[in-house]
Amino acid sequence: MSSENLTIRRAEKTDIPSILKLIKELAEYEKLLHEVVTTEKHLEEIIFGDKKFVEVLIAEINGEIAGQTIFFHNFSTFVGRPGLYIEDLYVRPQYRGKGIGKALLNEVIKLAKERNCGRVEWVVLDWNKPAIDFYKSIGAKPLDEWTIFRLTEDKF
Amino acid sequence: MSSENLTIRRAEKTDIPSILKLIKELAEYEKLLHEVVTTEKHLEEIIFGDKKFVEVLIAEINGEIAGQTIFFHNFSTFVGRPGLYIEDLYVRPQYRGKGIGKALLNEVIKLAKERNCGRVEWVVLDWNKPAIDFYKSIGAKPLDEWTIFRLTEDKF
Repeated sequence: MSSENLTIRRAEKTDIPSILKLIKELAEYEKLLHEVVTTEKHLEEIIFGDKKFVEVLIAEINGEIAGQTIFFHNFSTFVGRPGLYIEDLYVRPQYRGKGIGKALLNEVIKLAKERNCGRVEWVVLDWNKPAIDFYKSIGAKPLDEWTIFRLTEDKF
Repeated sequence: MSSENLTIRRAEKTDIPSILKLIKELAEYEKLLHEVVTTEKHLEEIIFGDKKFVEVLIAEINGEIAGQTIFFHNFSTFVGRPGLYIEDLYVRPQYRGKGIGKALLNEVIKLAKERNCGRVEWVVLDWNKPAIDFYKSIGAKPLDEWTIFRLTEDKF
């Protein structure tokens, strides 16, 4: 299977079951499957509904879904312009090592450039060394001095 | 000066010079003033323009601007619903210790609840112990196992 058969396209409504399936596959890899409570309805609202603000790109190899990336605009007060924040970047195990992750990331970076964004950002689990090495290789910097805080709705 | 005179309101266009001033004050406290390249024009676009997606709340004590918070919607594929991401939460030095930061944060949490969000998130510099202690006291959890990666536009 050569990478010549790789296509990257925008998600359509009919992709929603597959998008959810791949969200769950990624969560399983991250050992966080128990945290996934999203539904097809939620995804449809946020990707295709009136208040949509989340975008999805899908990678296909010979017409088979090989991976996806899910992203949205964020904002830095320092830069003053929007950025893109990548929530998910996932390649299915059987399709790894073919440059699909890099191709998906490059598409997001291309969009960031077209939209005059200042940054592309994402988070990675500290033990995910293959991902960290890949991100460093493209010139991304870890923000080691920052910690994310999260307040979940049970504490609202 | 009692906290009875505290009011929290949505920012208006005329607040933009003050919003930028407080962004710079916060950056100075974070020792990151050199990173601030935003302008009043950028802020106006993102807070009040056609593609606005950033919100600002302003805290006033006796009509004087005491602090502000800047936030926007983010999204978790696991939760499937939008969250709120707080980009800035800032109280000017002369107004600290009066519960203004907590009042601003509570307003954002209230909005998150009204909008059926799953989470409120933000980042903090590791050396900012007063902030970290405050965040833990309200039940927020540090996501110590995640690292943020950033690709800046010079690498696009």
